[in-house]
Amino acid sequence: MKVSPLAPAEMPAMPPVDGVRLAVAAGGLRYKDRPDVLLALFDPGTTVGGVLTRSRCPSAPVEWCRDRLAAGTARALVVNAGNANAFTGLRGRSAVDITAKAAAKAAGCEPDAVFLASTGVIGEPLDPAPFESLLAEMATRAAPDGYADAAAAIMTTDTFAKVATRTVGIGETHVTINGIAKGSGMIAPDMATMLSFLFTDAPIAAPVLEKLVRRLSKITYNAITVDSDTSTSDTVLLFATGKAEARGVAPITDMSDPRLPPFKRKLRRVMKDLALQIVRDGEGASKLVKIAVSGAETSRGAEKIARAIANSPLVKTAIAGEDPNWGRVVMAVGKAGQAADRDRLSIWFGPHEVARGGERHPDYDEETVAAYMKNDEIDLSVDLGIGAGKARIWTCDLTHDYISINADYRS
Amino acid sequence: MKVSPLAPAEMPAMPPVDGVRLAVAAGGLRYKDRPDVLLALFDPGTTVGGVLTRSRCPSAPVEWCRDRLAAGTARALVVNAGNANAFTGLRGRSAVDITAKAAAKAAGCEPDAVFLASTGVIGEPLDPAPFESLLAEMATRAAPDGYADAAAAIMTTDTFAKVATRTVGIGETHVTINGIAKGSGMIAPDMATMLSFLFTDAPIAAPVLEKLVRRLSKITYNAITVDSDTSTSDTVLLFATGKAEARGVAPITDMSDPRLPPFKRKLRRVMKDLALQIVRDGEGASKLVKIAVSGAETSRGAEKIARAIANSPLVKTAIAGEDPNWGRVVMAVGKAGQAADRDRLSIWFGPHEVARGGERHPDYDEETVAAYMKNDEIDLSVDLGIGAGKARIWTCDLTHDYISINADYRS
Repeated sequence: MKVSPLAPAEMPAMPPVDGVRLAVAAGGLRYKDRPDVLLALFDPGTTVGGVLTRSRCPSAPVEWCRDRLAAGTARALVVNAGNANAFTGLRGRSAVDITAKAAAKAAGCEPDAVFLASTGVIGEPLDPAPFESLLAEMATRAAPDGYADAAAAIMTTDTFAKVATRTVGIGETHVTINGIAKGSGMIAPDMATMLSFLFTDAPIAAPVLEKLVRRLSKITYNAITVDSDTSTSDTVLLFATGKAEARGVAPITDMSDPRLPPFKRKLRRVMKDLALQIVRDGEGASKLVKIAVSGAETSRGAEKIARAIANSPLVKTAIAGEDPNWGRVVMAVGKAGQAADRDRLSIWFGPHEVARGGERHPDYDEETVAAYMKNDEIDLSVDLGIGAGKARIWTCDLTHDYISINADYRS
Repeated sequence: MKVSPLAPAEMPAMPPVDGVRLAVAAGGLRYKDRPDVLLALFDPGTTVGGVLTRSRCPSAPVEWCRDRLAAGTARALVVNAGNANAFTGLRGRSAVDITAKAAAKAAGCEPDAVFLASTGVIGEPLDPAPFESLLAEMATRAAPDGYADAAAAIMTTDTFAKVATRTVGIGETHVTINGIAKGSGMIAPDMATMLSFLFTDAPIAAPVLEKLVRRLSKITYNAITVDSDTSTSDTVLLFATGKAEARGVAPITDMSDPRLPPFKRKLRRVMKDLALQIVRDGEGASKLVKIAVSGAETSRGAEKIARAIANSPLVKTAIAGEDPNWGRVVMAVGKAGQAADRDRLSIWFGPHEVARGGERHPDYDEETVAAYMKNDEIDLSVDLGIGAGKARIWTCDLTHDYISINADYRS
């Protein structure tokens, strides 16, 4: 599998997060000769907040996590790639129980402090038998570094490992925010898409973590779409070990804490960085496309129009063909079912205004715009001209490689 | 362009419809050396009913037709392929006016009795100058036969011409229903998709025609999707010349007329036949897929679930790859946002029940189901197990050819 042409040029060096230790292993669940299991161990006192898929057919691990997020206490995270343990009935629930117990034993905690995620094929029973010895062994060698390996262990059709990191000052000291993510296909918005795990040593109460993740997911993970398809397994979890408290950071227990905004800004950057990496690794992607809609009646309407454009196979194939086919953008605006006045619509490809006032812009020059379409990153802007609603969505193009990857994924 | 492998084995012989005359011509609007303009002339007394796209960015001809359907009188229809005259601003409206006047002159009627449709590229100005002499010349040789030529003249990315015909007894005599259609990409449901023109010699009042077309479109043209993209130009018009009145058929002026049900049944067959031909000619299609959803909370919910499956790129690519990847069907059900209970869900590929009660069916045999997937026509059934709502949607698979066709349509 060749690496996406849109992959970041280099991976950042990932500092440790005080209170987090990682280990990966080749569990042989599906892949041969590559690590496909991640164990993260958290020191006592770690809090957790998260968002999970809104799919009506969630995986067994998603249901497990949903039941345990309210307590907000975490000591371990187990992730496996290759088998989603989704639509696996009672056996799936049993596999989750057995895995959580094995992880709890390895981590020295209660099973309720274990968080689980699985990604891969849907409907295949997941045999949890190997986990007991595997997780026990992994726990003995879990170490503060290894984020790149952790990100690699949770990949499925991903072509590169996705990590991001930021530090942020809280009072006199600094805390770290690390994140990893996986996702490439079955990526759609309107819920926390794909898997992403975020780690910080800041001391933040679980309800605050949950609110932060929920709000920021809307403008990061929920603002991306590769193929409009929403996973049964989407999971975003933010773990806070609180270790910075020993360095003088008093716990943050309220959303109105004045120390929170800078943390939130950096967390947003980590989440957006990872979200865009997922689009950059969209199955078969050759272009990263930012769709900005403004002037809509409402921001919700703007978002629906942006998604209609982002999910249109005809818009996506035109971009793949480097064809500035703005007529298909008009089509997508028209089909979104939102307030629109054709004769007040303007469309830009990058800096080039291609349509204005219900027709092609008088200065439109096909060659100029076609040259712009050769870029790896395309900005597509639409102004409805009727209100103040706006939204941004990121997507990728639709290429032959998407078909090749997905017409024969299982076999 | 090779003909779709799903094309019907043969085209039916199309009888004339009393009161309808047709002519086609090569207008040179976009295509070289092929007819791309259709003129249909109707005898005085012809009524018309129709449905038009609900796109918020409709083409100029769609707006023209919408304004004239209320009167319900038709003497001529002009269709051109290659240029949609959509998003062409004031020039588009002017082109429509000029074309209608030219057709009216050729037909010897008022411009308000002329109906227009254009299909092709969006955003290119349509020069109406050639129409005056072209339509005058076409009117001189318009003839009662030539439905196959008419269907061919309105094609864009279509690979075969789409016609259908039925006769139906009304009292002691018979009337004819002929239909032609075009459509291959930018085909989506939730409105009358593509272009389709229906012709009958039955004497039926315009309001009845309109109701018939609207109701039947829901279960025919609106129940198909190729790529979830809805055209700016979708138009379905049913013209009734009333010529059968001379053969003893009294006019039908009311939906409760007892002679209407058999006519409605046959009209539905013509419309469904044409709708399925459009799916069979879906851009790049290699499989015709029927998606039947039952047991949903409501029929509207069933329809949304069926559309979520039909429009899922992952389901469509799996079918293209002849992969019985029912896990992706679970995903699509989950993302549809409708009431669903994972543990009551059953899924069939053809006669093979692959999933039941929240997990893989115990008798599931990959080889058997994989063999079924090699068929040209795939039946995919989902039972939600929670209510009585049901719906059917037809679609096609998503293949490399869809990408090839659409990544470079304009150039």
